[in-house]
Amino acid sequence: MYVSHPSVHPVEAPPITDGALRVVMMKDFQGMPGTIGGLVLRLCQFLFAAGAVSVMASTHDFVSVTAFCYLVTAVGLQSLWSLVLAVIDIYSLLVKRRLRNTGMVTLFTIGDGITSTLTFAAACASAGITVLISNDLGYCAHNQCMRLETATALAFFSWFTVSPSFLMNFWSLASR
Amino acid sequence: MYVSHPSVHPVEAPPITDGALRVVMMKDFQGMPGTIGGLVLRLCQFLFAAGAVSVMASTHDFVSVTAFCYLVTAVGLQSLWSLVLAVIDIYSLLVKRRLRNTGMVTLFTIGDGITSTLTFAAACASAGITVLISNDLGYCAHNQCMRLETATALAFFSWFTVSPSFLMNFWSLASR
Repeated sequence: MYVSHPSVHPVEAPPITDGALRVVMMKDFQGMPGTIGGLVLRLCQFLFAAGAVSVMASTHDFVSVTAFCYLVTAVGLQSLWSLVLAVIDIYSLLVKRRLRNTGMVTLFTIGDGITSTLTFAAACASAGITVLISNDLGYCAHNQCMRLETATALAFFSWFTVSPSFLMNFWSLASR
Repeated sequence: MYVSHPSVHPVEAPPITDGALRVVMMKDFQGMPGTIGGLVLRLCQFLFAAGAVSVMASTHDFVSVTAFCYLVTAVGLQSLWSLVLAVIDIYSLLVKRRLRNTGMVTLFTIGDGITSTLTFAAACASAGITVLISNDLGYCAHNQCMRLETATALAFFSWFTVSPSFLMNFWSLASR
């Protein structure tokens, strides 16, 4: 009897266990939205940004310099964004739901990209002027310079903690 | 006769055609290393960065301000990096070889990430001081301010053209 020979490879039926779930969980490394690491990053971003706003606002004439006003605006926006994302992370952890759908990750990536760019730009502009006042011109009332430097440093710290969130979300978006 | 029944799914042997090649080619969108778009981006980065160095160096007292010296250094590094990558792109186009191995893409991503961050930081610091001099203090010899603004704008243009290279390389790295 003639029997055809198609190319047949025996394939085991996938076990209906937690295998598929484990593959998804492997992508949930700490720092992603909806993880403890992600929440810690968001809280750090918020605290550093809020600190930068407070310290800069405590200097008496920051409104006379455009870059310092811009710093207050940019890190103010950063602190609001990070606070909202921290609240979402807390909710996600409480109800044990992962924030993994493409729409949300895209939104987080765009938001992190915009806020981190604005924060970094503000920190750099502020740093340029602070160095100009303290080093290049040597015109520095001690207390004022300390505050400017502190606010700038806090803005940089905020940017340092936003960048991993942005890169991880972007990576997650590209690798799906 | 007893015959066991493993779960067997017939699978067609993959045709040995250009199918697999086409999948790889689909990732070669313009702007990636080794494409005409990538080369154009590199040349724009180089020209804007070299322009920023030239214009800033033509101001007579840029060395007295730290941020302007930093701008010259950062965009100088950017122009060198972009020139080297442009040469690699030209070579790749001439010999019709794609630059797609993980090591090279990782190197391009890290290099683009570092140079774009430095260029953006320099442009922002320079912009902060230029706005301080021209708007906040109103202390602006017209010709000098024009040069400072031009150099800053060219540095920002250079950053605008480096960012797509970085994001595309990072995306390519994450999606493999």
